[in-house]
Amino acid sequence: MTTGGYDTDHEELTELLERNDLAGIQRWIADYPPHVIADEITRAEQVAAIMLFRLLDKDRALEVFEELDPTEQQKILSGQRDHAFHELVEAMDPDDRARLLGEAPAKFARRVLAGLSQQEREMTAALLGYPQGSVGRHMSPKAVPVRATGTVTQALRRIRLKGSDAETVYTLPVVDEERRLIGTATLRSLVLADPDQPVADLVDRQALSVPATADAEEAARLMQEANLLGLPVVDSEDRLVGILTIDDAIELIETADTEDVARLAGASPLTGHYLTASVFQVARSRAVWLLLLLVAATLSVNVMQLFEDTLAKVTALALFIPLLVGAGGNAGAQAATSAVRAIAVGEVRARDVLRVAWRELRVGLNLGLMLSVVAFSIGAILVGWSIAAVLGISLVAICAWAAVVGAVMPLVAKRLRIDPAVISAPLVTTLVDATGLIIYFLVAQAVLQF
Amino acid sequence: MTTGGYDTDHEELTELLERNDLAGIQRWIADYPPHVIADEITRAEQVAAIMLFRLLDKDRALEVFEELDPTEQQKILSGQRDHAFHELVEAMDPDDRARLLGEAPAKFARRVLAGLSQQEREMTAALLGYPQGSVGRHMSPKAVPVRATGTVTQALRRIRLKGSDAETVYTLPVVDEERRLIGTATLRSLVLADPDQPVADLVDRQALSVPATADAEEAARLMQEANLLGLPVVDSEDRLVGILTIDDAIELIETADTEDVARLAGASPLTGHYLTASVFQVARSRAVWLLLLLVAATLSVNVMQLFEDTLAKVTALALFIPLLVGAGGNAGAQAATSAVRAIAVGEVRARDVLRVAWRELRVGLNLGLMLSVVAFSIGAILVGWSIAAVLGISLVAICAWAAVVGAVMPLVAKRLRIDPAVISAPLVTTLVDATGLIIYFLVAQAVLQF
Repeated sequence: MTTGGYDTDHEELTELLERNDLAGIQRWIADYPPHVIADEITRAEQVAAIMLFRLLDKDRALEVFEELDPTEQQKILSGQRDHAFHELVEAMDPDDRARLLGEAPAKFARRVLAGLSQQEREMTAALLGYPQGSVGRHMSPKAVPVRATGTVTQALRRIRLKGSDAETVYTLPVVDEERRLIGTATLRSLVLADPDQPVADLVDRQALSVPATADAEEAARLMQEANLLGLPVVDSEDRLVGILTIDDAIELIETADTEDVARLAGASPLTGHYLTASVFQVARSRAVWLLLLLVAATLSVNVMQLFEDTLAKVTALALFIPLLVGAGGNAGAQAATSAVRAIAVGEVRARDVLRVAWRELRVGLNLGLMLSVVAFSIGAILVGWSIAAVLGISLVAICAWAAVVGAVMPLVAKRLRIDPAVISAPLVTTLVDATGLIIYFLVAQAVLQF
Repeated sequence: MTTGGYDTDHEELTELLERNDLAGIQRWIADYPPHVIADEITRAEQVAAIMLFRLLDKDRALEVFEELDPTEQQKILSGQRDHAFHELVEAMDPDDRARLLGEAPAKFARRVLAGLSQQEREMTAALLGYPQGSVGRHMSPKAVPVRATGTVTQALRRIRLKGSDAETVYTLPVVDEERRLIGTATLRSLVLADPDQPVADLVDRQALSVPATADAEEAARLMQEANLLGLPVVDSEDRLVGILTIDDAIELIETADTEDVARLAGASPLTGHYLTASVFQVARSRAVWLLLLLVAATLSVNVMQLFEDTLAKVTALALFIPLLVGAGGNAGAQAATSAVRAIAVGEVRARDVLRVAWRELRVGLNLGLMLSVVAFSIGAILVGWSIAAVLGISLVAICAWAAVVGAVMPLVAKRLRIDPAVISAPLVTTLVDATGLIIYFLVAQAVLQF
């Protein structure tokens, strides 16, 4: 019996690795569950990682291997001799293997395929035939279909026969003679039922299923919403081709969320571990957006040039530019982030755009009024009434404008079939900056009577 | 058999509801799984929601009810007569009921408790005894413990007897005579095993468990990392008190992610549905941070005042302030967001702070150099060489500084036991704005030789 929370013993392992204390490392390894060891392997340099892995006994090695990301799996495999290499690869679930091959260089992929048994190679090839990002790439082809015509005892016997190799036996696709999906039964219902009862009584004929070409993230979110442990996957003729399991679904959702978060901050998602990705990889994942945003920010320079005369007359106006631009940007970023998240979790759809705009207009006006009171006071204390008034009035308009633009842009993107998360907070901020400055200077000209 | 993707038929239901076409609504309802109906109820006004709910037959009503958020459950319950009210509440899982009561007003809570059977009331009270945010609040007390001393057949008989009421029977806690946890067995291993085999052979004695007072989100992430469908929960004497199931874990993770995303954008998490929360609630969730950030931005006004003379001499410097402040803010926000996410998914820990700072310094310098080339060209075209040089040099320094500050702040927060997500991108941006301006003006003074 072990209890969660392993944060403290990492230093011990680091020390053991540095001292090259093999016996000590072996004792350390024995105490921890596979996912902790996998985490340490991920965080270690390649040589140490391969050493750690070699010290695991065979069963645990496989368990740990299954917990690793594809990039880490490749790292470990590269350090194995042919025999161990092929044993590991042969034992992988076909969907994990397909994921590994999808990211690996061609030479490595050939080495993997060369050592596989024919059956496993065929299954992997079938998965790789589905488009990237589809359910087909992430499902397990080893579902255990049962027939509606038999009894519970017959179904359980079949599960005992076929189940040891399957990724899940908790959701059982029920099929007809032509392998067409009729519905699902759960292992729970079979175990709780009378052994002589026909399986047909236990089938949920309204059970959900998805085609193999469907979007994997959407299928995963569907499983989450409907609380499913397994989701049958079918071909275009409704024949069973596999099953998506909840652990793969969770991983899909987590990856999608991490991507969304990265995009929200205006960076491409990093494929890999934050600490082990190279500095160049990290920089590259952020560079494109930073550059685009810099170029977009040239717009604000143009606006400033447009009002250079106003600025030269009242230099005090310049003092509040960072504050104003910041407040507008923040209001826009908040709205954009809520909208992107609400779309991701399915609370808002593209057709809600008017409803959202109307809500955000009112939210923005509320927030703007509140901020304008504070900003007016700050301005009055620091420079005087007239500029304070300019500041207060502009803030109301800028906040309302920012909230509407921030929330509407992701919805419009969704309607145009662009990933809404691409409407990052920085993009909204940059656009709101330029328009906010226009509002500010126009209000200034009106109030200060140029 | 139904297939995923229900986006299109929402309009149909809206029309049926408007026409008050009960028969039509009933036909519509019959076609959709519970989570879709729950979604429609969530999006509908209260009266329509209650009408929709009343049209469901009893079994489906309960299924749909279980899919609703606590706020929606309260909305629906308020519209029920006593009899239906008590039936719904009595049938809820104790953990869902505890969550409902945790958020409900006292009067409503009394009405719920009054109608419960003694057994259910006691279970709910026990859960409510655990602190908010702990595993105890989210576990199901109805685990099905089995004994290691019996055979597989005996264990399966016990599951058949006790399992119908349990939230899961797939992960079976194995206990001794004093209900102390020894390990877990899976239903899969029982079903696949020889019926006469002793359960003891199938027990995973290294199985994870958590104390009921542990943090619920951490327990949920543990389940995800270790690919568990159920995680036994124990008291301080290692006695079994319940089990955390994967569907509750996923919900915990999703809620935590939504909170993180909201905080990243500098807003408090919204506790309800984006479309049904009131404008006031949405505004409130964003107001505190916007105000704090506005006040913090006063710092930038002070910096500008400090350099007002410089600015008056070369007004052209003002032109690039929004661009510069924007670029620094973006670089900081990217770094902060990566760090917060890496902490959330467990890739980075508080002690990695130096490693992270050194990485981000190099990333920031790379990005800064790249941006500075572009900004220099823009500056040279628009205003001339000297200001372009100021712009280029400052950008390198600002990007490096922003990346380090952005990534280190969440880690420092983590070490101080503050939620790292509180270090929102806007907070980093606001702080980087002020320091970035100082860098800019100092570089300007040096290059332009004041």
